[in-house]
Amino acid sequence: MAMMPPLADADLSAEAAAVFADIRATRQTEFVNNFWRVLAHDPVALKRTWESIRQVMAPGALDPLTKELIYVAVSMANSCEYCIRSHGAAARAKGMSDAQFMELVAVVAMAAETNRLATALQVPVDDAFKQV
Amino acid sequence: MAMMPPLADADLSAEAAAVFADIRATRQTEFVNNFWRVLAHDPVALKRTWESIRQVMAPGALDPLTKELIYVAVSMANSCEYCIRSHGAAARAKGMSDAQFMELVAVVAMAAETNRLATALQVPVDDAFKQV
Amino acid sequence: MAMMPPLADADLSAEAAAVFADIRATRQTEFVNNFWRVLAHDPVALKRTWESIRQVMAPGALDPLTKELIYVAVSMANSCEYCIRSHGAAARAKGMSDAQFMELVAVVAMAAETNRLATALQVPVDDAFKQV
Amino acid sequence: MAMMPPLADADLSAEAAAVFADIRATRQTEFVNNFWRVLAHDPVALKRTWESIRQVMAPGALDPLTKELIYVAVSMANSCEYCIRSHGAAARAKGMSDAQFMELVAVVAMAAETNRLATALQVPVDDAFKQV
Amino acid sequence: MAMMPPLADADLSAEAAAVFADIRATRQTEFVNNFWRVLAHDPVALKRTWESIRQVMAPGALDPLTKELIYVAVSMANSCEYCIRSHGAAARAKGMSDAQFMELVAVVAMAAETNRLATALQVPVDDAFKQV
Amino acid sequence: MAMMPPLADADLSAEAAAVFADIRATRQTEFVNNFWRVLAHDPVALKRTWESIRQVMAPGALDPLTKELIYVAVSMANSCEYCIRSHGAAARAKGMSDAQFMELVAVVAMAAETNRLATALQVPVDDAFKQV
Repeated sequence: MAMMPPLADADLSAEAAAVFADIRATRQTEFVNNFWRVLAHDPVALKRTWESIRQVMAPGALDPLTKELIYVAVSMANSCEYCIRSHGAAARAKGMSDAQFMELVAVVAMAAETNRLATALQVPVDDAFKQV
Repeated sequence: MAMMPPLADADLSAEAAAVFADIRATRQTEFVNNFWRVLAHDPVALKRTWESIRQVMAPGALDPLTKELIYVAVSMANSCEYCIRSHGAAARAKGMSDAQFMELVAVVAMAAETNRLATALQVPVDDAFKQV
Repeated sequence: MAMMPPLADADLSAEAAAVFADIRATRQTEFVNNFWRVLAHDPVALKRTWESIRQVMAPGALDPLTKELIYVAVSMANSCEYCIRSHGAAARAKGMSDAQFMELVAVVAMAAETNRLATALQVPVDDAFKQV
Repeated sequence: MAMMPPLADADLSAEAAAVFADIRATRQTEFVNNFWRVLAHDPVALKRTWESIRQVMAPGALDPLTKELIYVAVSMANSCEYCIRSHGAAARAKGMSDAQFMELVAVVAMAAETNRLATALQVPVDDAFKQV
Repeated sequence: MAMMPPLADADLSAEAAAVFADIRATRQTEFVNNFWRVLAHDPVALKRTWESIRQVMAPGALDPLTKELIYVAVSMANSCEYCIRSHGAAARAKGMSDAQFMELVAVVAMAAETNRLATALQVPVDDAFKQV
Repeated sequence: MAMMPPLADADLSAEAAAVFADIRATRQTEFVNNFWRVLAHDPVALKRTWESIRQVMAPGALDPLTKELIYVAVSMANSCEYCIRSHGAAARAKGMSDAQFMELVAVVAMAAETNRLATALQVPVDDAFKQV
């Protein structure tokens, strides 16, 4: 059970319904997942978040699959089950293979280990890295 | 100041010196950064960590730059300054442009926001995402 | 299933029972939630935690609802489902409206995003902020 | 040193300069802090972030000081030094007293402790909290 | 449901089966828990992780129970339910009593509180602590 | 610079001075570190925190060095530099050797890696672990 129940289409405000229409047109599917249905309790936040994520995830200097892999990796680092699953599905839809998924997981876990080593040991930043 | 001082080459144990030789041969540079110099206080951990990271970051189903971008992204999510800077430098060396870096940052931050939204609202996982 | 089972009233030590009596008198309800029932396995920790939280959450320079909103926000940032739900209920009991809840969520998520941007970009602290 | 240097006014793109003008007009001060000067390397992210934060932090069901206190609390939970300092300064400017600040800190720390207790003990969510 | 299904013995690759045989011989039990069964989708990661954890958790300057207590404590700090439960069971098997478990939890929670206080207040590191 | 300046002895309130006297008597040293000097701005929080930590860290089912090692490990997991350094010094004072410190670090980092693997792969909890 969410803190606020996911809204059915019939319960949307006009502003929220407009965002849902845009989600459906953009994704070319009738399915709208629970994230948006819960966020729809705040139509202004719904619209802002949808437009921001569409802007951020658009093709640019990085291709859409690479962006999605980064999104999944960060969701793992932040321990967000919903996000691991929903963006995992999105990455699959964009072509992520099983082998790519397992390599992604290995990098995320390896980084967690060396991140913690560097913090635990309070390793001083090398001068060579200060000009990046 | 680190919790343990970075070791100069002259202070390495034989086991640690062998790992340093491998790092230098692999990276084709004399420079060995502080992370390894501090970890060298535990030669077994030094060897294990170096061999693990080399295995994980090798070309595979994902290319080396994509792996490095994921590494940097996770380091940002875990707030590890040393790792952001050292793997940021590694990503640069593998070809990451300024535009790619700024897009990476935008994805990391966007994921942090929606990760938190999903957690704060305790959004229930859609059935469609449970079979991933 | 908890790591240690929640204790029924009949299974409490005398010290734990005394804390439960105080919880009931303070909150004016017979209901004692699982957090205290699990913590009751360590009566000293139970007493210390209850007395600390009562002291911290008492009216002071900040009013009780504001303190509760902060508590919920931190629980969201720390991804603690139990705490989001229990302190969410407490905030409701102190008057938090649906609109206030959704604004709270928006601030928590926005902060998560800009926190990550500042860390990812390693933004140097302005001199103007060093004297706070 | 940031990962990307803070941009001086003279180095801004036209789009970034327009956002800076809006920041100055809104805040009624010439001072623009480093967060925006670093983010200005990505004018689209700069504009999106500024407009989002202005929308989220506007007076609504919660007053601006309460929102700022929540922002500081989340920044503390996320260990973001830049954000603790910059939003701490913003909270001061909106009227936060020393006593309010110290109470805020106490709530943040108390929540961190009980969040961890609930997670460590894997306390099962009470039925009474599932309908929030 | 995992992101990848746990593999039954019949579905293991030859490399994964060899690691499972080593796990069974080392632990002197037929039971192999889900962590390894999911990781078995990547036999190289399976082997690396098993050998690393066996090396790290071996008796050394710290005894095996102390290492396991630290492992559980870190898993609590990182909010990993699977790890709290699996390493909690391992600590039990190595002799952890109920009283030791509850004291462990109290230290983890107390540290979480003072960690947050030090960060929230940005306490400057004393000179006396810089030479550690 | 802290958010609030560390207080010199001459600037303490009577309540804070009494706590400092207790810290000095307990630790048998005149030195009082900055953590307490900053917290002294809130004498009630100062007294509560000091008494709680003294209670939690007292000898019990776990010995003082084991508790201190757990404290350091959690501080590393929570990325608190002040706490890593101050409790690292306390562990040294209680007898932690260099070898024990490096093994502690290795366990903390290994746990970080497997915590992330379990979360990333959403490994289902084995029935055998549910009765802990």
